[in-house]
Amino acid sequence: MSANKSVYCFIPGNSEGDASMRDILGGKGANLAEMTSLGLPVPPGFTISTDMCQSFYDNGEALSDTLKDDVIKALKKVEEVIGKKFGDTKSPLLVSVRSGAKFSMPGMMDTVLNLGLNEETLVGLAEQSGNARFAWDSYRRFVQMYSNVVMGMNTSFLDIILEDLKHEKNYEKDNDLTVEDLQWLVSSYKNEIITSTGRKFPTDPMEQLWGSISAVFRSWNTPRAITYRNLHNFSHSLGTAVNVQSMVFGNMGDDCATGVAFTRDPSTGEKKFFGEFLINAQGEDVVAGIRTPQGLVKSGTGDSLEEAMPPAYAELVDVYKKLELHYRDMQDIEFTIEKNKLWMLQTRGGKRTAQAALRIACDMIDEKLITEKEALLRIEPHSLDQLLHPRLSPDADKTLLAKGLPASPGGASGQIVFNSEDSVALTEKGIKNILVRVETSPEDIEGMVAAQGVFTSRGGMTSHAAVVARGMGKCCVAGCTAANINYNDQELRIEGYVLKAGDVITLDGGTGEVFLGEVPTIDPVLDHYFERIMKLSDNYRTLGVRTNADTPTDAEKAVKFGAEGIGLCRTEHMFFDAHRIDVMRKMIMSDNKAQREEALGELLPMQKADFVGLFQAMAERPVTIRLLDPPLHEFLPHTDKELNELAQRLDESVEVLNNKVKSLKEFNPMLGHRGCRLAITYPEIYLMQAQAIAEAAIECINKGLNPSVEVMIPLVATDKELEILRKQVIEVIDQTQKQAEVEFNYLVGTMIELPRAALTADEIAIHADFFSFGTNDLTQTCLGLSRDDSGRFLQSYVHAGIFSEDPFVSIDQKGVGSLVKTACELGRKTKENIKLGICGEHGGDPQSVEFFHNVGLDYVSCSPYRVPVARLSAAQSALKNELSK
Amino acid sequence: MSANKSVYCFIPGNSEGDASMRDILGGKGANLAEMTSLGLPVPPGFTISTDMCQSFYDNGEALSDTLKDDVIKALKKVEEVIGKKFGDTKSPLLVSVRSGAKFSMPGMMDTVLNLGLNEETLVGLAEQSGNARFAWDSYRRFVQMYSNVVMGMNTSFLDIILEDLKHEKNYEKDNDLTVEDLQWLVSSYKNEIITSTGRKFPTDPMEQLWGSISAVFRSWNTPRAITYRNLHNFSHSLGTAVNVQSMVFGNMGDDCATGVAFTRDPSTGEKKFFGEFLINAQGEDVVAGIRTPQGLVKSGTGDSLEEAMPPAYAELVDVYKKLELHYRDMQDIEFTIEKNKLWMLQTRGGKRTAQAALRIACDMIDEKLITEKEALLRIEPHSLDQLLHPRLSPDADKTLLAKGLPASPGGASGQIVFNSEDSVALTEKGIKNILVRVETSPEDIEGMVAAQGVFTSRGGMTSHAAVVARGMGKCCVAGCTAANINYNDQELRIEGYVLKAGDVITLDGGTGEVFLGEVPTIDPVLDHYFERIMKLSDNYRTLGVRTNADTPTDAEKAVKFGAEGIGLCRTEHMFFDAHRIDVMRKMIMSDNKAQREEALGELLPMQKADFVGLFQAMAERPVTIRLLDPPLHEFLPHTDKELNELAQRLDESVEVLNNKVKSLKEFNPMLGHRGCRLAITYPEIYLMQAQAIAEAAIECINKGLNPSVEVMIPLVATDKELEILRKQVIEVIDQTQKQAEVEFNYLVGTMIELPRAALTADEIAIHADFFSFGTNDLTQTCLGLSRDDSGRFLQSYVHAGIFSEDPFVSIDQKGVGSLVKTACELGRKTKENIKLGICGEHGGDPQSVEFFHNVGLDYVSCSPYRVPVARLSAAQSALKNELSK
Repeated sequence: MSANKSVYCFIPGNSEGDASMRDILGGKGANLAEMTSLGLPVPPGFTISTDMCQSFYDNGEALSDTLKDDVIKALKKVEEVIGKKFGDTKSPLLVSVRSGAKFSMPGMMDTVLNLGLNEETLVGLAEQSGNARFAWDSYRRFVQMYSNVVMGMNTSFLDIILEDLKHEKNYEKDNDLTVEDLQWLVSSYKNEIITSTGRKFPTDPMEQLWGSISAVFRSWNTPRAITYRNLHNFSHSLGTAVNVQSMVFGNMGDDCATGVAFTRDPSTGEKKFFGEFLINAQGEDVVAGIRTPQGLVKSGTGDSLEEAMPPAYAELVDVYKKLELHYRDMQDIEFTIEKNKLWMLQTRGGKRTAQAALRIACDMIDEKLITEKEALLRIEPHSLDQLLHPRLSPDADKTLLAKGLPASPGGASGQIVFNSEDSVALTEKGIKNILVRVETSPEDIEGMVAAQGVFTSRGGMTSHAAVVARGMGKCCVAGCTAANINYNDQELRIEGYVLKAGDVITLDGGTGEVFLGEVPTIDPVLDHYFERIMKLSDNYRTLGVRTNADTPTDAEKAVKFGAEGIGLCRTEHMFFDAHRIDVMRKMIMSDNKAQREEALGELLPMQKADFVGLFQAMAERPVTIRLLDPPLHEFLPHTDKELNELAQRLDESVEVLNNKVKSLKEFNPMLGHRGCRLAITYPEIYLMQAQAIAEAAIECINKGLNPSVEVMIPLVATDKELEILRKQVIEVIDQTQKQAEVEFNYLVGTMIELPRAALTADEIAIHADFFSFGTNDLTQTCLGLSRDDSGRFLQSYVHAGIFSEDPFVSIDQKGVGSLVKTACELGRKTKENIKLGICGEHGGDPQSVEFFHNVGLDYVSCSPYRVPVARLSAAQSALKNELSK
Repeated sequence: MSANKSVYCFIPGNSEGDASMRDILGGKGANLAEMTSLGLPVPPGFTISTDMCQSFYDNGEALSDTLKDDVIKALKKVEEVIGKKFGDTKSPLLVSVRSGAKFSMPGMMDTVLNLGLNEETLVGLAEQSGNARFAWDSYRRFVQMYSNVVMGMNTSFLDIILEDLKHEKNYEKDNDLTVEDLQWLVSSYKNEIITSTGRKFPTDPMEQLWGSISAVFRSWNTPRAITYRNLHNFSHSLGTAVNVQSMVFGNMGDDCATGVAFTRDPSTGEKKFFGEFLINAQGEDVVAGIRTPQGLVKSGTGDSLEEAMPPAYAELVDVYKKLELHYRDMQDIEFTIEKNKLWMLQTRGGKRTAQAALRIACDMIDEKLITEKEALLRIEPHSLDQLLHPRLSPDADKTLLAKGLPASPGGASGQIVFNSEDSVALTEKGIKNILVRVETSPEDIEGMVAAQGVFTSRGGMTSHAAVVARGMGKCCVAGCTAANINYNDQELRIEGYVLKAGDVITLDGGTGEVFLGEVPTIDPVLDHYFERIMKLSDNYRTLGVRTNADTPTDAEKAVKFGAEGIGLCRTEHMFFDAHRIDVMRKMIMSDNKAQREEALGELLPMQKADFVGLFQAMAERPVTIRLLDPPLHEFLPHTDKELNELAQRLDESVEVLNNKVKSLKEFNPMLGHRGCRLAITYPEIYLMQAQAIAEAAIECINKGLNPSVEVMIPLVATDKELEILRKQVIEVIDQTQKQAEVEFNYLVGTMIELPRAALTADEIAIHADFFSFGTNDLTQTCLGLSRDDSGRFLQSYVHAGIFSEDPFVSIDQKGVGSLVKTACELGRKTKENIKLGICGEHGGDPQSVEFFHNVGLDYVSCSPYRVPVARLSAAQSALKNELSK
């Protein structure tokens, strides 16, 4: 058991928590307490701490008596301050029960509203509100919500009863239901609940409360919540808090409303108040996107909150300004207006696009609201990814289908799919697709992850689809009302077009436009906010950032994104080119050294040209060239057809070819005859590459360039391998220099990508000018985990909490990281100034970058698009270290 | 440069070295010096130190002037004591130049005899010996030897000239050659040498000397010498010394002889003088096996040395007794008798069979020649292997072909091969074979390694074949004169049988018999010497020794060999049984948990029976059961035929089966979905196994047994995996105990076989009662080296000196070993008394056992046949530690 309190009240004059207590109170609870302390109008209530979530599970998914006592005491305090009593038939207190974890998990966990109602207490509510229909409607909603969330009913059972009634009575909207209809509905619901669940709907408010609290705790471990946490790298052990808050109603009449707002534009970052609301609606209606909401600020349509309820609007503006100043960050707020009185239900740091994050950070520096360092630390490095990805070409021919809301920027094309499973299935086959839904819900998360983009016909800028897509940096067009989606027929009709699953559409998330077919994309133009944040990052970071690039095009792109060199050029990719692969295959088919050397002789000028291109693209920046790494069989074809064709081209018998393919087959290619092992058995391969590098450098020098060459030998397990190969490489390069009478400096180093190399780095360093950690292979060997095969169980591993995240995405610090650390220490013991870098996929992962910064590497190297991510992450790592000093 | 002297004389009254200086003088040189000091009759000479070998290579394969000066000075001293002069025409000093490394490498390096002869000096030799034919024959031999060893001639060129001459003149033996023939031969040889090499045969004795010394140094790095060192784990950096010694002649007439002897029987260990000699022969003739030699000791044949030369024999007996007492070990000696005068040319510790080693050790303890500890430290643990392997069944029907010499004990069957390459090729295909040669030479080493046994038609008990085979513990029948071998026709004719390559024969190395076809084998009966040495080992060792056994039969065998428990029972082997594999496949083919559980239910009683058998075989000794480890696809068939058959048996479509096989295919199965990963995704598999273990234990307890159960979970990479699975296993076992109302203690532990597990052993230890190091997989992952694929390049790696030996045979101490050490330290940090063992192949390798002893493991576990090896190795490790204190 924890030493913390189990229940914290937020009651005017008695707010037991504050914004710093997110760990204990969850984000929502901490901010409700903070707002209460600030004197803002918050409906009183209390928060059950996150520790109680673990206790709940430890206690066999039951609430302890101690906790129940504490809840009852807190409830008493709320009753006192409000002057109503929970379960009272005259003046009943109604509450909401909401989840609230440390990190926001929108729509992932459960909520119950209007709790405390039964056929006695609703009489009191009817009297108090003077609106029997409202009271019965509230009760109907409560029964529906509670039976689903707490009792596990399938809501569609009750929906059918409602739809049948409306159909029978010829009603169009729920609002047409009369008190009698509602009474009949509640009674029908209750019968259906007994039929479906075998249990009676509880009438005791306390029983309802315990049930709802338990349901919220249980919702922490639903599959969709687990998926969400895995997706966002949140720990499964945090637990959720439970917020029990007195109800206010936005649906008591036309002097009531409910809405959400952002203190700045979450899409562009522009400094303007921004939000949506619905008159006479209850909380979740706005977010759920069932009705399309109106804007808050006057905009000419005449239906804004500013115009509809000026005093409430004015108060809201006061509150939002106060909140942004107080929190010194853009806020996402939820409010309800009950009979013209404003109530604040939530505030939190607002999710924003990368573009908005950059602009807000820059603006807030200029407004002197935050410092440069704070600004840098606030930007989620991952989010920069979305800025750098291609956008639709403005010059391309396009067939506009319709326009929806620009919910999350970027361009995306793909085949139409109408559900999550199809999206996942197509993506697994490598087929791009767009998830097309009337509206999305948490069940669609996996499809949203898999799809290139998301399209909805309903819902606003704060709908589920919009919020989640922005969080993922995924392109999204929402609320495209021109679209008519029919799941049964798998059809999307827009403006006369009838599109089927499999047809291709293109989304522009920046404009909200949808186009027919595929539209070509162009590289993004990066605005001055981006450039400013990148320059700021460079001022603070100490870690170098290079790129992994195999072609001049990639290299140039990376330089534009700020790469300071190439950390990994994979020479094997150069051989897959159509007119080279056969020469490569001739080399592999050779029976002896002389034949091999002849084929290598043909490859030499091609390789030389490759390197000249790279050196030119990178100018004086260092270029690390890794010599051939994959096993030779990767270059050979495997189907009969390809083998036949190759046999003809090489003038070789299919049988001989087939035998070669068979003889090169390996049980575990990852641990096989590859990397420097190839060069130990066939030295001539690396010798050719070394010569090509030397000749390329000489040609560049003769053109007046000054290339900085680093030769890297892969898959070294022992010092002796490197000793032998380094000597050979140096001999060739030095000889080539002598012949050309041109001198240049170069380094010869090695990958550290096997545990043994890390453990004996002191010996290996004797022969290495630099180490570059190949954390992909180091992860595979350290964990004994094949990246290509782990898909079958890695998800189970993440679900079971065995890995907090995919170790191929973020470095396993305890295992793989400890090898990196050991190797750095041993390497420096031998050579104090040995250059240390990393060129695995982890080089662009913020958490990993922080680890590499702390270990003291000289640089990270990552794919061109992730260079800005790495620059910002490196700056944040340096700043975090500064803070912790 | 070393601080040691470069040249050490061994001259009566001036012996500059002694037996302790093997590092500097090599074994031969050190013992020549020691014998000289002891006053034994050693022809005077000097030894060039092993350091000079490295200097020779550092100096670009040339002798330095300083070294030449030192050699000339030493030569002067020899000239003085002998009263002859090198290169003198009247009284010429002739010398032999022989290699001599720290460890004996018989026949591996080069020797030149009769050095100092030319057409002038041979006149002096003729006069001194009174035998012109002898002088010319010596010169002819010298020219032949020198041109081959120093000038690199192919000897067959000169052999052809000799054979042509003999044919032309109708000579049967070399002895028929006249002085004129010899003169003509020398002149023809010299012409052929000019033709072949383009160089004149050197006449200057000094030039001859420098050439020979250089040739010996160069012979250190011939491929066959490197192979030999790799085979015996000798370091390539030791270098060879060069022994320059004045010549004595065993071939000057019938009062001359040359021979080799052992102070005890090297085959049985019996305390009796044992050896062979040839009258009127030069040194190498005995060992080369060209003439079949006579015995030393009177035995009824009338041609023994004892009878032929009684005084020389008596002196030899004196000398051998002196030597054995002095060296306190059985000696292998070489001698020459020149005109009835005995000269000692070599003494060294004699190679012996394992059987002999044990008997000699026991006898010498009883003779109070050595202590128990010395006795134990002298026995090569590897050699015990040969004692434990099956022998031919005495009751089997056999067709005796012939009888040769029982050169090296053991029984072996296989296909006849006539050369090394064929033996290697067949062995790679898994086909047992017997290498059949007229005689073997160092070129045959690889075939001798590959073959099951070696058969020769010529050569004695000290022939190359016999000595090398004994050293390897390989069965050998030598000198089977009844056999007629024709390499061209690939035929072996014995007593009317005409056998071809591919026909099967069986050897009995203990009797020298050869049988037609395959003869069944039986387990060896171990003698009391073996039992005594094993008991002594147990007295001194602290490391436990268990066995890897999957069946009661293996377990019983291992207990007989002294196993103290089962360290590894691989449960997967149990499922390959013909009537179980289909149930296993049904389990794998299951689409859901219920189907899987049904199939597992069928497997449960089978598994239970397996464990009952093991518990009964092991009584109260601990039994470590590893839960299922291999990936599931290993259990499925892969050929179309097998798939079709299986489909019929399982009543399943071939397509479904095929899809399953495809869906389970892995790129790198070693790093794939196996071990505990199977149990994370399909918990029911381990649950079945845990239940079977519990039920088996209960059944045994109910029968009055007291099994000691250890459940082992494989391929753990993280503490969390073990935490989850341990909990599940314990739940099942405890529940089964409760139901049966029987209680027993058991342990749940894990394999440490992935680098990450070793690096996080402190966390893993929290959930483990024991660790067992799986050093096979740990080697694969630490080195990134697939055992199944490394064959293609591992040999190149050992040749290049990258690995001093195959890391799958002897543990890579620096890499894999450091992980073992780290894991031990971390494990003990968490649990001081955590049980630590190892169950990889390394558990039976003496060097590895020593490492494991030093790291402080509780036990090693190895295959049943290697249990005695491990027991002795463990004792030696403890004794070595004691000595080094």
